Amino acid sequence: MRAVQLTAPGTLELRTVPVPEIGPGELLLRVGAAGICHSDSYVLGLPFPVSERPLTLGHEIAGTIEAVGAEAGDLRPGERGIVYLCWSCGSCRECLRGNENVCLAAGRTAMPPCPGLGPDGGMAEYVRIPARSFVPIGELDFAQAAPLADAALTPMHAIRGAMEQLWPGATAVAIGIGGLGHVAVQLLKALTETTVIAVDVDPAKLALATACGADLTLAADDGTAAAILDHTGGRGAEAVFDFVGSDATATLAVQSVAPNGAYRMVGLAGGVPGIDSGPAGGPGLPWGATVRKSYGGTRTNLIDAVALATAGRVRAEIECFDLADARTAFDRLDSGAIRGRAVLIP
Amino acid sequence: MRAVQLTAPGTLELRTVPVPEIGPGELLLRVGAAGICHSDSYVLGLPFPVSERPLTLGHEIAGTIEAVGAEAGDLRPGERGIVYLCWSCGSCRECLRGNENVCLAAGRTAMPPCPGLGPDGGMAEYVRIPARSFVPIGELDFAQAAPLADAALTPMHAIRGAMEQLWPGATAVAIGIGGLGHVAVQLLKALTETTVIAVDVDPAKLALATACGADLTLAADDGTAAAILDHTGGRGAEAVFDFVGSDATATLAVQSVAPNGAYRMVGLAGGVPGIDSGPAGGPGLPWGATVRKSYGGTRTNLIDAVALATAGRVRAEIECFDLADARTAFDRLDSGAIRGRAVLIP
Amino acid sequence: MRAVQLTAPGTLELRTVPVPEIGPGELLLRVGAAGICHSDSYVLGLPFPVSERPLTLGHEIAGTIEAVGAEAGDLRPGERGIVYLCWSCGSCRECLRGNENVCLAAGRTAMPPCPGLGPDGGMAEYVRIPARSFVPIGELDFAQAAPLADAALTPMHAIRGAMEQLWPGATAVAIGIGGLGHVAVQLLKALTETTVIAVDVDPAKLALATACGADLTLAADDGTAAAILDHTGGRGAEAVFDFVGSDATATLAVQSVAPNGAYRMVGLAGGVPGIDSGPAGGPGLPWGATVRKSYGGTRTNLIDAVALATAGRVRAEIECFDLADARTAFDRLDSGAIRGRAVLIP
Amino acid sequence: MRAVQLTAPGTLELRTVPVPEIGPGELLLRVGAAGICHSDSYVLGLPFPVSERPLTLGHEIAGTIEAVGAEAGDLRPGERGIVYLCWSCGSCRECLRGNENVCLAAGRTAMPPCPGLGPDGGMAEYVRIPARSFVPIGELDFAQAAPLADAALTPMHAIRGAMEQLWPGATAVAIGIGGLGHVAVQLLKALTETTVIAVDVDPAKLALATACGADLTLAADDGTAAAILDHTGGRGAEAVFDFVGSDATATLAVQSVAPNGAYRMVGLAGGVPGIDSGPAGGPGLPWGATVRKSYGGTRTNLIDAVALATAGRVRAEIECFDLADARTAFDRLDSGAIRGRAVLIP
Repeated sequence: MRAVQLTAPGTLELRTVPVPEIGPGELLLRVGAAGICHSDSYVLGLPFPVSERPLTLGHEIAGTIEAVGAEAGDLRPGERGIVYLCWSCGSCRECLRGNENVCLAAGRTAMPPCPGLGPDGGMAEYVRIPARSFVPIGELDFAQAAPLADAALTPMHAIRGAMEQLWPGATAVAIGIGGLGHVAVQLLKALTETTVIAVDVDPAKLALATACGADLTLAADDGTAAAILDHTGGRGAEAVFDFVGSDATATLAVQSVAPNGAYRMVGLAGGVPGIDSGPAGGPGLPWGATVRKSYGGTRTNLIDAVALATAGRVRAEIECFDLADARTAFDRLDSGAIRGRAVLIP
Repeated sequence: MRAVQLTAPGTLELRTVPVPEIGPGELLLRVGAAGICHSDSYVLGLPFPVSERPLTLGHEIAGTIEAVGAEAGDLRPGERGIVYLCWSCGSCRECLRGNENVCLAAGRTAMPPCPGLGPDGGMAEYVRIPARSFVPIGELDFAQAAPLADAALTPMHAIRGAMEQLWPGATAVAIGIGGLGHVAVQLLKALTETTVIAVDVDPAKLALATACGADLTLAADDGTAAAILDHTGGRGAEAVFDFVGSDATATLAVQSVAPNGAYRMVGLAGGVPGIDSGPAGGPGLPWGATVRKSYGGTRTNLIDAVALATAGRVRAEIECFDLADARTAFDRLDSGAIRGRAVLIP
Repeated sequence: MRAVQLTAPGTLELRTVPVPEIGPGELLLRVGAAGICHSDSYVLGLPFPVSERPLTLGHEIAGTIEAVGAEAGDLRPGERGIVYLCWSCGSCRECLRGNENVCLAAGRTAMPPCPGLGPDGGMAEYVRIPARSFVPIGELDFAQAAPLADAALTPMHAIRGAMEQLWPGATAVAIGIGGLGHVAVQLLKALTETTVIAVDVDPAKLALATACGADLTLAADDGTAAAILDHTGGRGAEAVFDFVGSDATATLAVQSVAPNGAYRMVGLAGGVPGIDSGPAGGPGLPWGATVRKSYGGTRTNLIDAVALATAGRVRAEIECFDLADARTAFDRLDSGAIRGRAVLIP
Repeated sequence: MRAVQLTAPGTLELRTVPVPEIGPGELLLRVGAAGICHSDSYVLGLPFPVSERPLTLGHEIAGTIEAVGAEAGDLRPGERGIVYLCWSCGSCRECLRGNENVCLAAGRTAMPPCPGLGPDGGMAEYVRIPARSFVPIGELDFAQAAPLADAALTPMHAIRGAMEQLWPGATAVAIGIGGLGHVAVQLLKALTETTVIAVDVDPAKLALATACGADLTLAADDGTAAAILDHTGGRGAEAVFDFVGSDATATLAVQSVAPNGAYRMVGLAGGVPGIDSGPAGGPGLPWGATVRKSYGGTRTNLIDAVALATAGRVRAEIECFDLADARTAFDRLDSGAIRGRAVLIP
């Protein structure tokens, strides 16, 4: 089968490899679509090898069950679904409570195993997955469904964890209207009655935010924090979701979140929020606000995202590419030219 | 009457001033005891004037009602109580929900008005207070009760806001076993079934922590984070309460808190936790952990603290001084020589 | 001034009475509109006197400040607003937490004082209210705003208290599409991504539910519970809000709520849900489901409802009557002929 | 092997049966101790057959792993543990959130499969269990550990679900100081700073409650509700846990719970609380109080209970019997003569 593999730092190759074999508790999935995430690009750009062997990328996977291993429950070939990306231990305290995205077995600060990062991912004709990671999608289109696995899961988790702050009449800010951000705007409009402010440097992304339902868009510049304070009577936004994670966006989040508000760090660009424990005053973090590093989401978050997509309340904006054009797709993503999500079709 | 006043940066004077006059909705309190907090010391040490007039310090106040203004409810002279220190607007959304400690009227990052910082405080024979800030204490000793107003209120709030993390069998860390920290250890033992680890640089403070019920004490040094990870099977502590707030303690908190854990910044020493949005790994903040800047507490937190003290479950360790010896008391506090809380007795 | 008063059991009179005088902390409100609630009709129908003197009814009040008493904050004549109906003590533990609707000073099972039930209400040209009960409404129409005080407040409170159950994809049932129910349907559609099922005996009410956004309407009969189970794959509805409260609707709620679901008793018709502690099986209350008797709401619930109405997301269906036609309005309400809410205009 | 089996309605026999065979994902456990629960007695007393074949009773099971099936993880023979009693589907929404005790696959009102009720239970020398139901107990004594599986799990779940009501200074009532109730009193004292009131008809049970840490004991009679109101200043108890579930105890719970309080129905005696939707007044259910039918608990609840027992904070009062004396043990349980929990030792 064909697979898009990382073969050396920075090198992406379309290779012919054997179809994976599956064992007990596993499924073979015929891939219908695989989304491309900034984190794939991040891994591709790392200056050191992330794997001893060629690694098939891709953690946003939709497809059809081709084969079912022993002890894999009552799933059947032909069923359509997407893949929950946290391949967690299932037995630590956090997994037992449904928080598989912070599985303790992975280590204190590591991500749980994830397709395309360790195990082979979905940018291929077939992929081997744990049976319990399969989430049915009914009749949803594969290219529409694949991005739900991360681009909807991750903002869904961040938003659901801030529902206490997202009361009717509150203000929510989404920073960075890319793959995750444009879904986040839709989720915020669907799940809350907040005023949604979208922030980006790119006018095209802000136009996408407006199409997704944002109440207000702000170009990211030195005056953005002041503009958010101005729109909120000086108190700041009750929740700020940062899908970029640069120094600039982290600073913006600290300066624009309200007392007792929620600032969720989602983007992985390595930015430093620069908070301190001193008596605040000035533009620092207000009392009672929480800063949280949010990763992925729970399986129920993903099931809920599928329900919203099925009901037509959330729709990923996508640009489709053939597997053979993966390099082009990555380049367009890196240059900021993708509107919404790039998706590979095997 | 006599009052301990800040008359110039760094200058503390025992002065004779008029007894305050009260208006509608106010009480005149005859002070029975006034605690000294590190934040008093902080204000005393500021290199610029904090007030245009001499300012009576002191926000941990216990006493007896001497006079009652008009429209002050059914309070009566002779009643004994302590003073809730957040003199908030009472009508913003946070106040309406009981979160007077993050009153929005104060401004996004400011503290609400507080006795001893703006209005005159309680290091005097009498103090003028809003009637609604009065919390009855029954027969509690004044010197015992005064520290509850901050040294119990503030950790109570931080702990109650982390109850979800403080499940039976979890681990809680208290950093800094001073006025607040030694009460925090008692509150954690009373309110939870967690293993409580106390951290301090001073062996005498660690001995106090043990007397307060700590299960384990750790000297603060380069190996403290590793020791906490070691005691928690590598996952870290479910909750870390930092009552110091230096760079060193902030770093310790980040390195020792568990995934989905709670790190609460309480001490105001201006330390920077140094968190970033990158894919973690190493000693950074784990996924799902929340960092919160905790200030003061709610009136119900204070009422609850009084209930615990009345039941004998929490007891402030105190060292008493005459008003005239305030300077000595501050010096001992600054040098770390106070065991528990210094309290002035008019 | 003119006032609609209950002068004897069952007797409603339009009388001329003095304009009320106000004291400290009070406002005189010139009434713009006053809604009629089933509870007004309930009080009117009681066979015994509820008051020693003629009682002006009406607890859904909108109007303009005419005069401001001493110590009433910074409100000014001319400001427009509605009246928060729980005139609670403000100092018990529940009030301190913002739960003024369950004020402990009222007694274990009593309602807090409420205009039109004890104090004179708003079916008059003027009404005397506590300054802190005033909630600004900006430019909202009085007749639109008045019903928010109960018909929006009460379902808002019941719904916000069940948000944990109202996850995206869940099912919510509203029983009784009258004054409260038709607002509840709108609130559920605005605040959640649930499938909303409306139940009523009257096809006209079900048509109103559909106009308000209900996804499905069911005539109330012996097959309703089975129909709800059918639509939810057998598990039942995650939340059931009963705005009637008869034996029949209480039974329906028990039989159609899901495990770990929320059944909220809002209507006051005295129905008995008939739950028991035995090992369930059959059509009884499922494990983990909570039954709660919900009364009114908090001031923040009301502020949020005003925000939604201002944003055009919630709109009371109203039928307006002159004060002089109050009897007609009550009669139409009792016969089920009112679509939405009846409102009196002085 | 020997097994205590229900062979006909009301008939208990000690029979010799084959040691069970295990399949993939299963364990064979050599039973060290098996607790006897009122629900075993309930099943024994049913006038109709509950099973087509002789059924080994017992759902409180402690023992040692004798054999491990394929695909059963990394468990090893010789490990000691207890059995989590909800043998749930693991894949419905409630299971995914960790709420296996309300597994939706069981049906809307049914209990999930449970050893001793459907599958054979633990009153035997060996028992076959799902590997994922095994919870390690370290060095805990088997007879001490077995009751944790229900007598600690069930109150732990009920209490943890009411933590919001169990603030420091609140009042908690435990009705029925039998197997579950005497553990509940210990849990309440360990996990909260509430005043714990124990209620029972039997002075010996009340003496046990006192030994378990109850602050106050009340004989159950016509004056009990009034006594509870008296001790709580009229507001009632913030949480009432009913481990009996008779008409009388259900009525007591309704009459003694506070506004916004928690009444948890745990005992299965079939009592009817008799609540109605009318405007309260009198001795009915107060506004905001929740009534919940609580069943079993989650796996994390059980893990937490084991942690408390290991730390010596919770200890089951037990009376041990040989398997051959099961009938005697049941008779003593039925007559109320057991102090704490009866445990069978194979």
